[in-house]
This record gives sequence, C-alpha cells and structure tokens, in this order.
Amino acid sequence: MTEAVPVKSADEGALAIICGGGTLPFAVADAVIKHGRRVGVFAIRGWADPKRIVDYPHYWAAVGQFGAFCRLARREGCRDVVFIGSMVRPAIWQIRPDFKTLRLLPRIFGIFRGGDDHLLKGVAAIFEEHGFRLVGAQAVAPEILMPEGALGRERPNDRDRADIAKGLALLSAASPFDVGQAVVVADARVLAIEAAEGTDRMLARVAELRRSGRIASGRGVLVKAAKRNQDRRLDLPSIGPQTVESAARAGLAGIAVVAGGTIVAEPTRIGATADRAGLFVLGVREQAAER
Amino acid sequence: MTEAVPVKSADEGALAIICGGGTLPFAVADAVIKHGRRVGVFAIRGWADPKRIVDYPHYWAAVGQFGAFCRLARREGCRDVVFIGSMVRPAIWQIRPDFKTLRLLPRIFGIFRGGDDHLLKGVAAIFEEHGFRLVGAQAVAPEILMPEGALGRERPNDRDRADIAKGLALLSAASPFDVGQAVVVADARVLAIEAAEGTDRMLARVAELRRSGRIASGRGVLVKAAKRNQDRRLDLPSIGPQTVESAARAGLAGIAVVAGGTIVAEPTRIGATADRAGLFVLGVREQAAER
Repeated sequence: MTEAVPVKSADEGALAIICGGGTLPFAVADAVIKHGRRVGVFAIRGWADPKRIVDYPHYWAAVGQFGAFCRLARREGCRDVVFIGSMVRPAIWQIRPDFKTLRLLPRIFGIFRGGDDHLLKGVAAIFEEHGFRLVGAQAVAPEILMPEGALGRERPNDRDRADIAKGLALLSAASPFDVGQAVVVADARVLAIEAAEGTDRMLARVAELRRSGRIASGRGVLVKAAKRNQDRRLDLPSIGPQTVESAARAGLAGIAVVAGGTIVAEPTRIGATADRAGLFVLGVREQAAER
Repeated sequence: MTEAVPVKSADEGALAIICGGGTLPFAVADAVIKHGRRVGVFAIRGWADPKRIVDYPHYWAAVGQFGAFCRLARREGCRDVVFIGSMVRPAIWQIRPDFKTLRLLPRIFGIFRGGDDHLLKGVAAIFEEHGFRLVGAQAVAPEILMPEGALGRERPNDRDRADIAKGLALLSAASPFDVGQAVVVADARVLAIEAAEGTDRMLARVAELRRSGRIASGRGVLVKAAKRNQDRRLDLPSIGPQTVESAARAGLAGIAVVAGGTIVAEPTRIGATADRAGLFVLGVREQAAER
C-alpha cells in the first residue's frame, strides 16, 4: 500500500479533486487544505453536493467533459488528480462528450465492456496519458482510512468473528471475477453477495428477506473488502453513517472492513450511529482478508 | 452422477414424494407412475398446489411433522423418499414440531445454522437414520433432467458464450462457500450473484437495475449450476417457464444450465416460452462447469 504514505505538500502544485456525491470529498478537501495544499474541486453535475461545494474553489462539469477538465486543471496548476465520492457507474449514453472526449469514444466503449475495475483502470489510463497523475484520496488525506479495531462501543462475539472470516474468504474467492466488495454472512450462512447493485441495495434486500421470514439465521455481519486487483487509487471500499443505518435496518450485528483499506468519511459520526443502533463497526487486519 | 441411473421399479415398494410448490412434483409423480411404481404424495401445507394434489394418493403435512410422516410412509410401504418442488427455507419458528420432531429439535437447531447444503444434508441424515432412503427425483424420473443443447430456437452468440464461461467459473469459485447457484453476466461484467434471495428475486433485481440505467452492458446471460458438494438428491438447480419469463423481463439474451445436472419441469413449455421471448435456453456440458 505505497499509496498510504502521505504525499508531501511542497511544490506539488494544487490538487484536482473530482468530486462525486456524499460528504467524503469535502472531508478529503478539508484534510488536504489543512496539510497546506491548494485544491481545485471539479464537481460532477448530478452527484456533488451543490450546498457544500460553494465553500471550495470549484468548477461544475458533466461526465464526459474531459477536454474542459484538462484545460481548467492545467490552468489551476493541478497535476495530481483524486477521484472521490459516490457516483453510480453511468450508462454510456449518459456521457456528454466534449470534443476531446468524442475522439476517445471508441476507447471508452471498450472500457465500458467489463467490470468496474476494468472501467476505472481505463479511465485512469486516459488521465495519465494526458499528463495527470492519479493519486488515491488516502495518499493525500491518510486520516480518512479505517483504523484497526472498533469505532464504537460494541464488539463482535465469536459467532460474528466466524462470520467475518467466512465473508473475507468468500470475497477473496470472488475477487478474480472483478465482483464482490461486500457480503452478508449470518450464522455461517451467506445471505447476500453484492454485484452491480451496490452495498445499500444489498442491505435493503437482506432487510426485506428478513421481514418476509426467509432468513432464519441470527443477526449476521456485513463484510467489505477491496478486490484483490482493484486500483486502490480509484475505488477503495468505503463506509459512512448511512451504511451503519442500512446495516441496522437489515438486523445485522455489525460491520467489518479491512483496516487501512477502507475509507471512512466521518468516523466519529459512524461510531455514534453504531452505538445508537447497537452495532459494532470493526477494522480487521489485511492478512485476515488475504487468506 | 450415479443417481441419474433410473431406479428399477420392481419390488421397491411405493415412493414417498414430499411435495413442495410448482408443477414439478406432479411431473415427477406422473413419470414414476408411468414407470409402473406406486406413489404416496406428502403435500407440504402452504406450498403444494391443492388443486393438483387431489389427483394423487396424498396426505397433507406441515413442516416439522416428522413423526406423522414416518408412521404414514411406513403404512404406505414407502422406503424411498423424494423431496421435490419449490419451498423456501422455512424460518425455524415456522416448524410445527410433532412429538418425534420435538425430540430432534436440538439437532434441527444445529442444522439450521449454516447454508442450504448443511440444512439439507442434516435433514437427509435424519430421514436415513429412520430407515428411509433419500433418492433424487432424477433417479426415479430421469426425463426431468435438462438435455445438452438448446430447448428452443435461439442460440447464444460468441459474446454470450464468453459470459457463460465466466459465470460457470464464478459459480465454481463460490461453491465451497455453500452459496451461488446462479449468476447473471453481461459483456464480461457480473451483474448479480444469487445467495439467499433465490433466482427469481435476483432476476427482478437485474430488471430493476436495467430500468434505472445502472446497467450499461449488453443483454447478458443467466447461468445456473449445482454447487460442487451439493447433495444432488435434494437440491438440483431447476428452471421452468417462469424462469424464462423472469430472464426476459431482466432483458437477458438467454439462460445456460448444466445438462444432466438441472431439472426442467416442462421442457416443451420452456422452449415455447423462450421462442416467444427471443431467449436461448441452453444445456451445457458438465466439464465446462468444473473448470
């Protein structure tokens, strides 16, 4: 995890933050500014929070306006670029290509065929060929990474720990297929595996299965881990207070994520939400994920 | 697949058919009767179709009435038992134990903790210890197994074939975790993996993701295969006309299942439904599933 080493702020110019939804981009921007580096925020229309974006030097951009990004980012003196915040994989027809993007379209069609890793790696390659350097948010703001141990008061019991181990092993087995950042395991039974639907929808499914009496098992655990070949600069798993609330609605005992390999937007709020809901939120060591 | 050898009907007594939902149990009963063997159908309350059950010698039973089953099955001269038809895993509190089942409850609690295989194997062991012999529906009615090749007119293209191979490989990797009889793969992207929700709900999810524009990929394929250590007497994957309709609603190009390892209730109706919807329904060879 070379990306986890904090990047020195001196003479590296401003940082371009390509800003999706949620509060995470602002946590990153605040941390970077605190570390003494200038930022230019590129707010993605439809995703970035318009109320919060006004506090930062920013530009609005639609998905696909790569030419405009290149011009503006260079003017701001940004060489390093961070992608951060929630953004659902767009449909290819949702891209509003400017002239430069139009010329890249045949290639973009190619990278759209395949899993998320394939897509993100393709996008990363395009940025790098145009002289930008993609950095992980965790490299410029290491304080956003999940620490080892629990965020709140609650702790997993032995049964939960067995479920966590099973979940990590399953994620590891599914990893070569560019799928599965999250599973729910309860009493050694796998209740749900995440694919294209995302973690929140998967948790909503578990809640619904439980309501309809299709889950006889005990509470269970949400386990999240990065895919093995995932480009950690682009797509680390992340959790927020909303994840805790969704897990509570699904009746789970807790959440386990890989320490140092998961982004937590607001650890204090997560801990408080977890305490209120009676859930544990645990950072487990990487090696447990690799077995 | 020793179970696929048709069981001789002579002097084996009647066959007890424990009958869940759908038309499959009746297809099996009809085939067995045609092969010259007597049947006693044990209709599970809430699942078995009350309109169709009346055409067969039958008893109604609730989940958990194992004592009653033993007594009645012995009276009918049944030693062999087939479990067949749809039945959602019951919640443990849905079991209405009779006296014999009550004494088995501590053990039943144990087998409820874990995946479906674990549950079914535990149930099978209880039946066998009481002098019954569990046989697969395919052993007494081999005509219900999916043949190699297509059921309708449509055929997969090269892209579909690549998606089928990826789906089979992923199912194989997930198999040791007692999960995943089905996946949806489109343009090399895994859209959904089935766990506790079942195939129909998984397909409904894909349909919804597509409607909401979260799937930019092409049509895609539903791939089903038995788990590697699955007890094939109890829980072979199955498809019916409804599966084809759900797959069509999810916008899929077709369905691929393992030939000889999948139950098809009504192959002619499946073929006709597939033709109407423009989907292929393909039986692929086992070895493709094992790689």
